[in-house]
Amino acid sequence: MSEQQLFFLVPIGSVLALLFAFIQVRKVLGFSEGSEIMRKISASVRKGANAYLKRQYTGVAMFFVAMFVILGIMAFFKLLTPFVPFAFITGGFFSGLSGFIGMKIATSANARTAQASSESLNRGLRVAFSSGTVMGFTVVGLGLLDLSIWFFLLKYIFYANLAAEPAEQIRRISSAMLTFGMGASSMALFARVGGGIFTKAADVGADLVGKVEAGIPEDDPRNPAVIADNVGDNVGDVAGMGADLYESYVGSIVATMALAVSAGYNFGGAVVPMLMATVGTVASLIGTFFVRCGEKADQKSLLGALRKGTYISSAIIILASYPVIYFSLDCAHYPERIGIYFAVLSGLLAGVLIGFFTEYYTSDHYNPTKNLAAASLTGPATIIIGGISLGMLSTLLPVIIVSASVLTSFFVSGGAANFSYGLYGVGISAVGMLSTLGITLATDAYGPVADNAGGIAEMSHLPHEVRERTDALDSLGNTTAATGKGFAIGSAALTALALIVAYIDEINIHDPSFVLNLEITNPPVLIGLFVGVMLPFLFSSMTMSAVGRAAQNIVKEVRRQFKEIKGLMEGTAEADYATCVDICTRGAQKEMILPALTGIISPIIVGLVLGVNGVAGMLAGATASGFVLAVMMANSGGAWDNAKKHIESGKLGGKGSDPHKAAVVGDTVGDPFKDTSGPSINILIKLLSMVSIVFAAFILRFSLFK
Amino acid sequence: MSEQQLFFLVPIGSVLALLFAFIQVRKVLGFSEGSEIMRKISASVRKGANAYLKRQYTGVAMFFVAMFVILGIMAFFKLLTPFVPFAFITGGFFSGLSGFIGMKIATSANARTAQASSESLNRGLRVAFSSGTVMGFTVVGLGLLDLSIWFFLLKYIFYANLAAEPAEQIRRISSAMLTFGMGASSMALFARVGGGIFTKAADVGADLVGKVEAGIPEDDPRNPAVIADNVGDNVGDVAGMGADLYESYVGSIVATMALAVSAGYNFGGAVVPMLMATVGTVASLIGTFFVRCGEKADQKSLLGALRKGTYISSAIIILASYPVIYFSLDCAHYPERIGIYFAVLSGLLAGVLIGFFTEYYTSDHYNPTKNLAAASLTGPATIIIGGISLGMLSTLLPVIIVSASVLTSFFVSGGAANFSYGLYGVGISAVGMLSTLGITLATDAYGPVADNAGGIAEMSHLPHEVRERTDALDSLGNTTAATGKGFAIGSAALTALALIVAYIDEINIHDPSFVLNLEITNPPVLIGLFVGVMLPFLFSSMTMSAVGRAAQNIVKEVRRQFKEIKGLMEGTAEADYATCVDICTRGAQKEMILPALTGIISPIIVGLVLGVNGVAGMLAGATASGFVLAVMMANSGGAWDNAKKHIESGKLGGKGSDPHKAAVVGDTVGDPFKDTSGPSINILIKLLSMVSIVFAAFILRFSLFK
Repeated sequence: MSEQQLFFLVPIGSVLALLFAFIQVRKVLGFSEGSEIMRKISASVRKGANAYLKRQYTGVAMFFVAMFVILGIMAFFKLLTPFVPFAFITGGFFSGLSGFIGMKIATSANARTAQASSESLNRGLRVAFSSGTVMGFTVVGLGLLDLSIWFFLLKYIFYANLAAEPAEQIRRISSAMLTFGMGASSMALFARVGGGIFTKAADVGADLVGKVEAGIPEDDPRNPAVIADNVGDNVGDVAGMGADLYESYVGSIVATMALAVSAGYNFGGAVVPMLMATVGTVASLIGTFFVRCGEKADQKSLLGALRKGTYISSAIIILASYPVIYFSLDCAHYPERIGIYFAVLSGLLAGVLIGFFTEYYTSDHYNPTKNLAAASLTGPATIIIGGISLGMLSTLLPVIIVSASVLTSFFVSGGAANFSYGLYGVGISAVGMLSTLGITLATDAYGPVADNAGGIAEMSHLPHEVRERTDALDSLGNTTAATGKGFAIGSAALTALALIVAYIDEINIHDPSFVLNLEITNPPVLIGLFVGVMLPFLFSSMTMSAVGRAAQNIVKEVRRQFKEIKGLMEGTAEADYATCVDICTRGAQKEMILPALTGIISPIIVGLVLGVNGVAGMLAGATASGFVLAVMMANSGGAWDNAKKHIESGKLGGKGSDPHKAAVVGDTVGDPFKDTSGPSINILIKLLSMVSIVFAAFILRFSLFK
Repeated sequence: MSEQQLFFLVPIGSVLALLFAFIQVRKVLGFSEGSEIMRKISASVRKGANAYLKRQYTGVAMFFVAMFVILGIMAFFKLLTPFVPFAFITGGFFSGLSGFIGMKIATSANARTAQASSESLNRGLRVAFSSGTVMGFTVVGLGLLDLSIWFFLLKYIFYANLAAEPAEQIRRISSAMLTFGMGASSMALFARVGGGIFTKAADVGADLVGKVEAGIPEDDPRNPAVIADNVGDNVGDVAGMGADLYESYVGSIVATMALAVSAGYNFGGAVVPMLMATVGTVASLIGTFFVRCGEKADQKSLLGALRKGTYISSAIIILASYPVIYFSLDCAHYPERIGIYFAVLSGLLAGVLIGFFTEYYTSDHYNPTKNLAAASLTGPATIIIGGISLGMLSTLLPVIIVSASVLTSFFVSGGAANFSYGLYGVGISAVGMLSTLGITLATDAYGPVADNAGGIAEMSHLPHEVRERTDALDSLGNTTAATGKGFAIGSAALTALALIVAYIDEINIHDPSFVLNLEITNPPVLIGLFVGVMLPFLFSSMTMSAVGRAAQNIVKEVRRQFKEIKGLMEGTAEADYATCVDICTRGAQKEMILPALTGIISPIIVGLVLGVNGVAGMLAGATASGFVLAVMMANSGGAWDNAKKHIESGKLGGKGSDPHKAAVVGDTVGDPFKDTSGPSINILIKLLSMVSIVFAAFILRFSLFK
């Protein structure tokens, strides 16, 4: 098969993925939504989530229009190619759409999962996991669709006249497609930050007044913030995550495409990342069929089933990517290029290892979290110190794994002989890591559905064992979520590294005579590095304090309702859920602007002051510090959460004891760590690079330093 | 005056400083130590501190002997010059001596300060401040002494035969003197980490059982850990800080000296940093005479008096450094060199600004800490999130200030025309920042003395107003300590940057044919950067969990004593203080080894695996991330401390209220942040560079990557 023919596998893979997602939707909707009260609760959650997304997308649309105009003006002055504004818009649109579809199915699956769980654990898993696969395959399907449409248009229509100069043609194509990544990153950042603020404001607010002050249990229907809390799971953990991983997926592919140009791989090299993703999609699809187990399955065998699916997908990728790379890179004539295959493997392996160590540090099956739980015996202060210390310690191995993966993929791809070959290898390792996204995202996205199902079971007074089953599903979801977070962070770091190189290529494209001085002793680089290292801290501070402010408003509202609505505590009057949802929505909309703009404006300011060398330093600093900080925050938060669950399972005094109270403090601190600030940093580091690339020509012309 | 004659001002300045310190010792010892019980308590504290230092120095001595042997072997194989092992030992010795003398005078001044405070606030200040000046001038005096002895020996005796090749001579001199910095850094790291673990283990342990479980007030003599807590102030905040700032001071000077060589400034350029330090010493000495006020002074006028001293010293430096630089750099013939003067000013200004913003973020006179205190209304979780968020936000301005200072000093020193000139300017700005050390350290070191005096006043049942006065002194000490921390962190960052360049020079000296590739896109550099960014996190994790473990042992011991010693709570039996001191001592000794070795071994491992380029990346990453993390930890910790004090002053419900309990949790979390991990990071980042420099030839020969 020629490379050209191979390319057409990409849209085919895309259609397959979307078709599969559609079949899963039908399957989920075939299950019963349960009793009237369950349907009613589910409808409230759905209504709240819809209202939130509508408001968010309206707000974000204004931003996109403004950016479209700015990019249009820049294109008019020849600082950008004319396709950029359009690519930007479509990237944002598809990223938002991924989140929207994921949210739609999740809010339709929650009551159905609760109902199915009342029949059996396995049935519950099937509904929840199917809704997860919808999300997983929507993300990869839309990603491949968007990529293949743009690639097709650019290659065969817009730049068809450049067919005689394949290097120049691919250069222009990848340059335009990077913008598409910037659109996706911007959307993802808004979705992650806004959703993260919503979900944690509702969660913290509900807990502070409900659990702590009023002394009512979690998910109690008397708590006015309980619906907002459930809406939060859907808009934060589902819609936010969908937009986020869409962006990671597309970002890693377009970054590697851009690197193919300077490596001289041209067409073959540019399609390899798309082909690898296609292979991964098909492999994931096959893998999902292995996620099944007997009717009498316990939690352990469920986890085994999920793992089996992932491992089979990985094995298929390992086998199938060899011929794909062999043919598309013409290894018959260039045998050394087969090293790229090993770069893919190193990325896959690094993803698995990071996932494993994330679980090691955050699961209460292992010592770190067990010891953390024990720190609650001496009160909240020691469990906080312990959790921060655990999170910091847990950064060591991921840094070593990513480092080893970068070095390996650099050298097996021929980096020693040709620098650009090696960098292309680093990019492709990120694609390798994300190739199993279809199934890993499915196992990840089902968690919030199970969480919601538990809430619905509680609120609709289903028998105790139903809640136990949904809790089992939820707890399993915590484990897979930890692994998923490891993937998201690891791939973000590798993608960001590839984007830094793509940025430098972009500078060379715009002004081949410009001499970069990227030595770390060059003051603009060094200062850029300092600023870059600081940015994730600044950004986390903003998102954390945003959660705090938004939660304060919820606290006030819940207190007001308890005081003013007579009979609420006795269960004779109903709470005003909608107002809480509305407060969270408005809070999240307002609070997401500043952090998101920080991500977009920082590279421009740094560029104008310190020049392109300073920007490169900033990107390197932000990537390294963002990676370390994101790992720390995710793992501290995850460990606190599971330490609390460990105590709730009856250890160290169990629920209601003093250690439990201390652990609740830890968990509350961990909430914005792991669900707001931490995951947003992944997007931030890529967005910084994307913005730098798109504004490269502008900075070249107007910066203070050259 | 010729440059040679100017050099001899340095030993004169040193002797002046030491003489002045001696006079202050006499002055302090002239005050009464108070009643018998006060003398007895003070003697216990002194005994505990002596025992600790004796044990610590014995342990550290073994490390120094081992290093001496290793360096000796390396020198034998011509990987180092033969002076290196000796320079290493003297650096460690003088650093330790600075801490020892500071501790000696502090433990002699505590009861005297309590007694003097019972007469008047102003008298109390005078004793405490005088003991602070002993520390300040011992550090600068010993620093200048050590520097001038080595400089004299190397220039006029050991390398006198190279007089005809001044560039080569200065190159060898500065290379040997850098080792001397490594010795000081190693000692400082042990002292800071060990002292930091001791003081916080005692503090946290005493609070957890005493205040929280037994419900007795702070500094109550019934608490068995109370003496250990007071010992901790002396071995951590005094001896640790003395060793630390000795190292900063000497480190910034030798690093700049090394940069003078590649800038081609030779002798003149090499003595300028020493001369600037000498000018600063004399200026600080004059400044101390302005720290006085009327008998009826209140806290505000006391702070004014301290500030007046610092400002006058700064003004003298601004005036006097102009002629010093003019003559020593021969500006009559090279008028452009006067730019170095402005580099000094930019360093001085940056120090003042960082100090100011540190105070802004951590003092309850300003909004950030006031708002943080209000976050305690919704419990411990929100004050923890708020404090971390505040700390992260507070990194923005220091990064911008340091960045602006680096850029300014680089360009005013002629960096645009000659890169090396600019880098020398960056080094000299660090020296400028630290030039007021004599007086800033004096205003800083008096805090722990006042803290101890408060403890003694409490334990010896002095009238209530005495404790109020010592509290006023202590609270003033918190403000000056915050400023002092800002200086320590800012100067550490600038010094570390200078050391990175010195490292690269060192590589060129050892192997002029070696071609470095320091571009941030070079994989070893990039991976080194990742590892470097992670190291301060790993290091902080180790030091924080060390405090946790050591504190647990204290908790157990205090609980045991409360249970087994009959009549302890009733005040009829005496607690066994010595055992608590001993447990802290042993805990600190054991726990300091791993973090300290991490600092020493990391550059060697990274060097062996990633080569010299990787080491350079690691140093840049660790400096940037260490700076940001140290600022964050110091400011979070400081703000929690003052938020608690704010509530204790009667705001938001006052002592014993729920917000107060929440604030105590914040303060306890902040303790290891601000007094163990944060300040140790300053030393870590310099030690990493020093070790890299000393082992440069070794790494060049044996590394995996070239």
